[in-house]
Amino acid sequence: MDKKKHDSHQHEKKADASQEKVEVAQPLSDADRIKELEEALAAKGLESAANWDKYLRERADLENYRKRVQKEKEEILKYGKEEVIMEILPALDNLERAIDHANEESAIVEGVRLTLSMLLSALKKFGVTPVETPQGTPFNPEFHQAMGQVESADQEPNTIVAVFQKGYLLNERLLRPAMVTVAVKPAA
Amino acid sequence: MDKKKHDSHQHEKKADASQEKVEVAQPLSDADRIKELEEALAAKGLESAANWDKYLRERADLENYRKRVQKEKEEILKYGKEEVIMEILPALDNLERAIDHANEESAIVEGVRLTLSMLLSALKKFGVTPVETPQGTPFNPEFHQAMGQVESADQEPNTIVAVFQKGYLLNERLLRPAMVTVAVKPAA
Repeated sequence: MDKKKHDSHQHEKKADASQEKVEVAQPLSDADRIKELEEALAAKGLESAANWDKYLRERADLENYRKRVQKEKEEILKYGKEEVIMEILPALDNLERAIDHANEESAIVEGVRLTLSMLLSALKKFGVTPVETPQGTPFNPEFHQAMGQVESADQEPNTIVAVFQKGYLLNERLLRPAMVTVAVKPAA
Repeated sequence: MDKKKHDSHQHEKKADASQEKVEVAQPLSDADRIKELEEALAAKGLESAANWDKYLRERADLENYRKRVQKEKEEILKYGKEEVIMEILPALDNLERAIDHANEESAIVEGVRLTLSMLLSALKKFGVTPVETPQGTPFNPEFHQAMGQVESADQEPNTIVAVFQKGYLLNERLLRPAMVTVAVKPAA
């Protein structure tokens, strides 16, 4: 029976040896065989743990990537919209100017006014709103770009006198500053 | 020396036992210990291989996800643009109509014409082009929507007589069909 057991060990050892590349040229004593197996088991344990760690790290990477992608997608959607919106603004400016310069009412002036308000509501859906600049608004470099200064006895210095071109916000963030002239004290 | 070796085995066995949860209530024979270790080693080998597989699968998932995300990002960018473009088209229609109905040239008609061509070039940058429908174009349901039929002795039946509203393509794909009337043979 002992003989049979020994045979079965030899057999298993051989199978392991092919995987582990352990030298089996001459038969080992039981004590050496135990030592060898214990070492192999410890090494395999480390290998298994290392593989598990690699798996966990890869899984965490995937999870982080998923979260980052979600944010990136939202940014890209916004960016795509913003690109088109920026290209549309000059047409809005043109319509504004056409209305400002029309010296009489007519069907076409009415049409342009309607189109402008359609465009503004369309853009509003995407979060675009004009920078509000009623006369007398204090100049704010965060939203306004000064095109020049105008001497004024009526207006507080450093307030907006006129708007050359409307500014726009996209979801509260500046898309384009309003181009304005700013009041200064008249020279004495 | 043999004694010392045996001690060291006992020590290692204990350490392993705590991880492997192997019963060590009574000392094992060397043969049993070898059998036990061989089994533990085989099990550990399977575990390690399974962990490696999990790692590989997770890595492949990440790779596939990355590729999918790249495509999705391109789609989202297009989608963001398309959403804004679709909202802009009615304003274009309005400007087209204003020009069509203007019965005399004026600064404002000129301004509207300019604005329309600015808008069209802006949209062209994003791949938007009008559906071309010169009179006599055969009606094609892929690009045209029939609003009605017009008896015509001059035009081939099933060709376009007039365009009510321009259609647009986005990168060769239909964004909106052209709304047209179609010629039919006059009733005898």
